Amino acid sequence: MSLLTVGTVAFDAIETPFGKTDKIVGGAATYIAWSASYFSKKVNIVSVIGDDFDMAELEALRKRGVDTTGIEIKEGKKSFFWSGKYHLDMNSRDTLITDLNVLLEFNPVIPESYYDSDILLLGNIDPNLQMKVIEQLPKKPKLVVLDTMNYWMTPASIGKLREVMLKIDVLAINDAEARELSGEYSLVKAAKKILKQGPKYLIIKKGEHGALLFHENEVFFAPALPLEEVFDPTGAGDTFAGGFCGYIDKSRDISFENMKRAIIYGSAMASFCVEKFGAERIRNLTHHDIEDRVKDFIDLVQFDIVLED
Amino acid sequence: MSLLTVGTVAFDAIETPFGKTDKIVGGAATYIAWSASYFSKKVNIVSVIGDDFDMAELEALRKRGVDTTGIEIKEGKKSFFWSGKYHLDMNSRDTLITDLNVLLEFNPVIPESYYDSDILLLGNIDPNLQMKVIEQLPKKPKLVVLDTMNYWMTPASIGKLREVMLKIDVLAINDAEARELSGEYSLVKAAKKILKQGPKYLIIKKGEHGALLFHENEVFFAPALPLEEVFDPTGAGDTFAGGFCGYIDKSRDISFENMKRAIIYGSAMASFCVEKFGAERIRNLTHHDIEDRVKDFIDLVQFDIVLED
Repeated sequence: MSLLTVGTVAFDAIETPFGKTDKIVGGAATYIAWSASYFSKKVNIVSVIGDDFDMAELEALRKRGVDTTGIEIKEGKKSFFWSGKYHLDMNSRDTLITDLNVLLEFNPVIPESYYDSDILLLGNIDPNLQMKVIEQLPKKPKLVVLDTMNYWMTPASIGKLREVMLKIDVLAINDAEARELSGEYSLVKAAKKILKQGPKYLIIKKGEHGALLFHENEVFFAPALPLEEVFDPTGAGDTFAGGFCGYIDKSRDISFENMKRAIIYGSAMASFCVEKFGAERIRNLTHHDIEDRVKDFIDLVQFDIVLED
Repeated sequence: MSLLTVGTVAFDAIETPFGKTDKIVGGAATYIAWSASYFSKKVNIVSVIGDDFDMAELEALRKRGVDTTGIEIKEGKKSFFWSGKYHLDMNSRDTLITDLNVLLEFNPVIPESYYDSDILLLGNIDPNLQMKVIEQLPKKPKLVVLDTMNYWMTPASIGKLREVMLKIDVLAINDAEARELSGEYSLVKAAKKILKQGPKYLIIKKGEHGALLFHENEVFFAPALPLEEVFDPTGAGDTFAGGFCGYIDKSRDISFENMKRAIIYGSAMASFCVEKFGAERIRNLTHHDIEDRVKDFIDLVQFDIVLED
């Protein structure tokens, strides 16, 4: 089984109340690939970088079963760079620098060796590029998952985003984006509307408040793990998505019941991610670490009520 | 088994984005009593009202096994009146009117017939009054639960609040209050500090984001039920506390495992409360309604993961 993802591979510089980094490796596809690599046998990345990128990072990914054939290296160009500063509550941040660089001319080309990927995870990029990826695949993967953000819900992009939404199975957005996309404040009402617009499953991410999974008339809620410190939230959503898709890929089961499990595994991966800067914490996990963390989630929510009627 | 509660019995006038009410019956002890009455055989109220109060309301409570002997009626005086307006997100509100009236001279006196109450739930009032209630009881109840708010965390009241905290078992506050009381932003750190200051159990209420229960090194999370409409959140916290204490009273079990169940029942009661104005929705529930709602909570969070090691 294999997972195909398209998204940024980039440099970030991050400042949080706990410290700051120089340029470190980031980007949605980086977090997705590290996270999914604990589950999927093969993770196929489509992305673009400049020749300033640290090629040892690609080698590290390859050692974990990540295929980087689809990462185009633009000679003489710079990689995408983002810099941001988190506020004390870690729920909001200011973007300090966005240098699109190679992203400006990104034209994703899917290598033939990726064609039979079982799951497609469209990382958060321009919906025009996401559509190009979908259109290049000779057959629809077993599951298509779309991550996007409010930036693509403006008049200039929303039309293409809505076209992409018709081609996917699972949409993953945050609570503010669900409200914006649907025009409904109630997340239950928002979900009902959005589930009529393409996706059969909707994941609403609420950060420290957990995540909701909607499907038909069913709803599942997974909490976030209460942590002593959230050191750096960068990439937590991508790490969640990577773990979610990786788990489904590994288990070969796209039922609602299995998606619940996948959300718990995705949440467990995200809970590691925020413990250190960047992707550092999700580079050296063991199978045991992950199972222990999933057990924390089970302990957090399990209760034993026998209904009387 | 019986539950003793002290708190306001009052009039409210409420405005939400969905409508507004004239004076309706409210007050923490009213919500607590209605909610607990579905579980406790006997609910004992200590409160104070003016002779303007609707005495039929007291009769309605008595019909549900609520003992109103401890509600003092001040002749020629007016009942406590609160008026507020909720913002669109329902998480914040403006207080329009607070007429303390009889509350200004409230001096709680516990009838002897209440002395053997098994559980004491101190509703959100001046900690000086809460202490008077504790001191009047000849023996400590099996469980003492304290509800309070940021209003009592100011320099004028915090000293007495800290004294009360030394006499209780369970503290129930919201997330902002837990942060204020502890000086810690992380709720995990806040809980660790607060659990060294008296209470053995800490419930942190997060409104639409659920509730956390902390005890020693354990933590339990209960979600709020995602609802299509939150019609009026007034009294939801009191209804939660009443259901929580009532369930523990009925089940005669103050273990951590049983408190988890009690939090689910409390959350279920709160989810009814917000569906209509004031206490209207929690006046005519059936046992079946409550069990059905608890089943919704089970369905919302249950997942089935078999850990591999």
